Amino acid sequence: MTTVDSERHPHPVECREWLDGLEEIRAWLVESAATTQVLATAVGLDDIAPWAEDPQTGDLVHPSGHFFRVTGVRVDLPDDPARSWSQPIIDQPEIGILGFLAARVEGRLHVLVQAKAEPGNCNGIQLSPTVQATWSNYTGVHGGSSVPYLSYFATEHEGRSLIDVLQSEQAAWFYQKRNRNMLVMLEDPAEVEVLPGFAWIALEDLYRCLLEADVVNMDARTVLSCLPLHAIGGWVEPEPGTDDRIATAVRRSLHPESVPRVPLVEILSWITHHRSMPGLRGTMVALNSVDDVWVRTPQCIRHVEGRHFEIVGVRVEARGREVGEWRQPMLAPAAEGLAACLAAELDGVLHLLVRIAPSPGYREGVELGPTVQCVPAQSSGVTDAAHYLERVTSAPPEHVLFESVLSEEGGRFLRARTAYRIVEVTDDPPLDLPSGYQWVTLHQMGTLLQHSHYVNVEARTLIAAAHGLAVAREVERA
Amino acid sequence: MTTVDSERHPHPVECREWLDGLEEIRAWLVESAATTQVLATAVGLDDIAPWAEDPQTGDLVHPSGHFFRVTGVRVDLPDDPARSWSQPIIDQPEIGILGFLAARVEGRLHVLVQAKAEPGNCNGIQLSPTVQATWSNYTGVHGGSSVPYLSYFATEHEGRSLIDVLQSEQAAWFYQKRNRNMLVMLEDPAEVEVLPGFAWIALEDLYRCLLEADVVNMDARTVLSCLPLHAIGGWVEPEPGTDDRIATAVRRSLHPESVPRVPLVEILSWITHHRSMPGLRGTMVALNSVDDVWVRTPQCIRHVEGRHFEIVGVRVEARGREVGEWRQPMLAPAAEGLAACLAAELDGVLHLLVRIAPSPGYREGVELGPTVQCVPAQSSGVTDAAHYLERVTSAPPEHVLFESVLSEEGGRFLRARTAYRIVEVTDDPPLDLPSGYQWVTLHQMGTLLQHSHYVNVEARTLIAAAHGLAVAREVERA
Repeated sequence: MTTVDSERHPHPVECREWLDGLEEIRAWLVESAATTQVLATAVGLDDIAPWAEDPQTGDLVHPSGHFFRVTGVRVDLPDDPARSWSQPIIDQPEIGILGFLAARVEGRLHVLVQAKAEPGNCNGIQLSPTVQATWSNYTGVHGGSSVPYLSYFATEHEGRSLIDVLQSEQAAWFYQKRNRNMLVMLEDPAEVEVLPGFAWIALEDLYRCLLEADVVNMDARTVLSCLPLHAIGGWVEPEPGTDDRIATAVRRSLHPESVPRVPLVEILSWITHHRSMPGLRGTMVALNSVDDVWVRTPQCIRHVEGRHFEIVGVRVEARGREVGEWRQPMLAPAAEGLAACLAAELDGVLHLLVRIAPSPGYREGVELGPTVQCVPAQSSGVTDAAHYLERVTSAPPEHVLFESVLSEEGGRFLRARTAYRIVEVTDDPPLDLPSGYQWVTLHQMGTLLQHSHYVNVEARTLIAAAHGLAVAREVERA
Repeated sequence: MTTVDSERHPHPVECREWLDGLEEIRAWLVESAATTQVLATAVGLDDIAPWAEDPQTGDLVHPSGHFFRVTGVRVDLPDDPARSWSQPIIDQPEIGILGFLAARVEGRLHVLVQAKAEPGNCNGIQLSPTVQATWSNYTGVHGGSSVPYLSYFATEHEGRSLIDVLQSEQAAWFYQKRNRNMLVMLEDPAEVEVLPGFAWIALEDLYRCLLEADVVNMDARTVLSCLPLHAIGGWVEPEPGTDDRIATAVRRSLHPESVPRVPLVEILSWITHHRSMPGLRGTMVALNSVDDVWVRTPQCIRHVEGRHFEIVGVRVEARGREVGEWRQPMLAPAAEGLAACLAAELDGVLHLLVRIAPSPGYREGVELGPTVQCVPAQSSGVTDAAHYLERVTSAPPEHVLFESVLSEEGGRFLRARTAYRIVEVTDDPPLDLPSGYQWVTLHQMGTLLQHSHYVNVEARTLIAAAHGLAVAREVERA
């Protein structure tokens, strides 16, 4: 049990329970990697028992019926049947918990992070929420040990949640998956024991870590994006004498009184309009009935042209996790993704350009995504999307407000990485937008993020990055 | 084309385009009934061609594949398999539009209502929104005439929607059905011609009509419930010298600054908790595979004990509608429903007691419903529900703040009626509530109603009734 020293230096370096600044966090991750390892080795899909092919549907299933399965999804476009398609997709109906424990120490919000290894991570260990657990995890189907700190999240509790909302995940890879994003406040951090593999860090430090490649995992980023703006802390108030134009614009964008280019009621109407169109909505189908551009070998399931992704098998050996060894299918993307937002100061307030993003796995057919979300190695064309892709990739470095290559979920995806960028438009931001694009403030996104299924997981990482812009840039300058 | 006379009496009685007060509205409904009639005659399910039984599934389908179909739903309760069940249900994936045109005249919000006849209405004509149309209606699958005023709702428009949100409908009868609830403001009501069967009425008068049995149809009520509170009008401000305690408590409940018993963030967390439980969620199944307590005869599909509802056939003859004659299946409830909320002043603010209501047709598994929602003729037991049922039915008349028997959707349901009640608890409102019950203010409900799938259609009628409490009681006293 730790007691918090409220003296000037509350995080004694010799105690690993409180980490102060990037140096200490980096050192702790290196140290954790020595005790917690997850090694994933490629094996054939015919060699991942007890996972097996369902004889009827061809779906890849676990005999328990738990975890997840690899199945198919079909998208029928009523206005353009020739462009209809089907593809493999992961179905995981269980709602998992992604939860941070948090506490205020000397007025600053701190979160209890976990140094967590996942088989799909390209670098082993990343910072994750305090709890990252599926129903199977915490009801023991896994056959593993119990999940630490779970009782703070899995039972009905009163008035301690700052965040508690279901949010979607990658909808080209997951069929209607969502997780319960939570942040639970402790009155006193000493309420909980800091177990090995866990540490308290300040919220600002977590934002700073976003700038490092593959350090903050996807689950931590999505929870972070839902943080109510009033809780982010004193640094949101303009600091006297600050001369950072972007930090000031970000602070205005977070402020409830700032004037957005388009009122929220109109944003909601625009979303409802697109949700109401009979368009892109996926229907689950048997895996053995998907289009024959998807080829199945004993080794893997892949697109005949090597596009999109492969479904592969892995053997996982773990130390410091619930179970020592297991095998499972994973989804391995064909190439690195790009998720980028244009940003602009409109009347002094930072706005992000978001897009109505349709995808087969969304429960509502569409969610708001970044200006650009694609796999550049596979993109082509002269559409609006291509125009914006050109803008975000050709921007001069001084207009790039945020840039970081980050990992997607390492429990289901094998080495899935996305380059995230926020690029400022300084010369005449486009105001006459194509259908499906809109400028929004961070405060508007914050309101939407209190509710499910408005903002997609890629946009959420960029929202968290935008929240951190004020803080992180100050560090850069220091 | 009407021009609005801004003199003292803007609604000349001789012109039917503006109706002022209940007398004029009643007279207009009687007059409209003479020119618009819909006669529904019972026929056997084997006599509703071109509707027919799908040979594979037993579903009742239209050969066009449009409109709707009668299919089955199965509910698996993981914790209590013995209580799992299946039943017939209506599947209508198309999103319809329920839209009011509105305008301010002399500072008061007015809406353009339609006197609409539906085959299922027990009394022919009821007040409906300006537009009430499914995709099949407005794309002409129906083979009927075009829908008046539709262009104000069906195309992307800018900044004129006060309401634009998808909301669910009866989830024991409809599988995941939702409609687009809209209210579009006109700068000047003279923008539109008032066609026969339409009239402008003041919002206050529409609230007053809620007290009359079977006058305001379900579609009008659901849109009304979503009205942003700031738009309701000057009468929400406390009137100087008012001595109506309830009206004052309602106004406080509508106010953004009023102190709710439970903060919204906690209400959201409570909803998320219940949404996350693997519980009551329906899966569509073939109609011929539902439990054998459902009996199919050439005449109808009914529960062997006469419970719940029947699926019956009707022949409809219409005058003043799109098509002169057609046949269709309808759902006929076995008995009148009851939807009732307990209300209490907590710290001077009116709160309603709402309940987490699970139902097989909800997209999110649960929505917030009234304190009590049941079919009293078929209810029994000693649960919390029975306790509250006793409270709302045994209350003395002076504690009944609102009471009215109203019709449910008359296009799919045959003579479906529900007794709606708001009952005040004056002696020590229960504060230590069973799990799944919570006190909320009207302002909190207003925030939730800007978003989809939080508040069920029965609770929405009661919300609209609660909004009208301040106004309607003044009329009663006058």
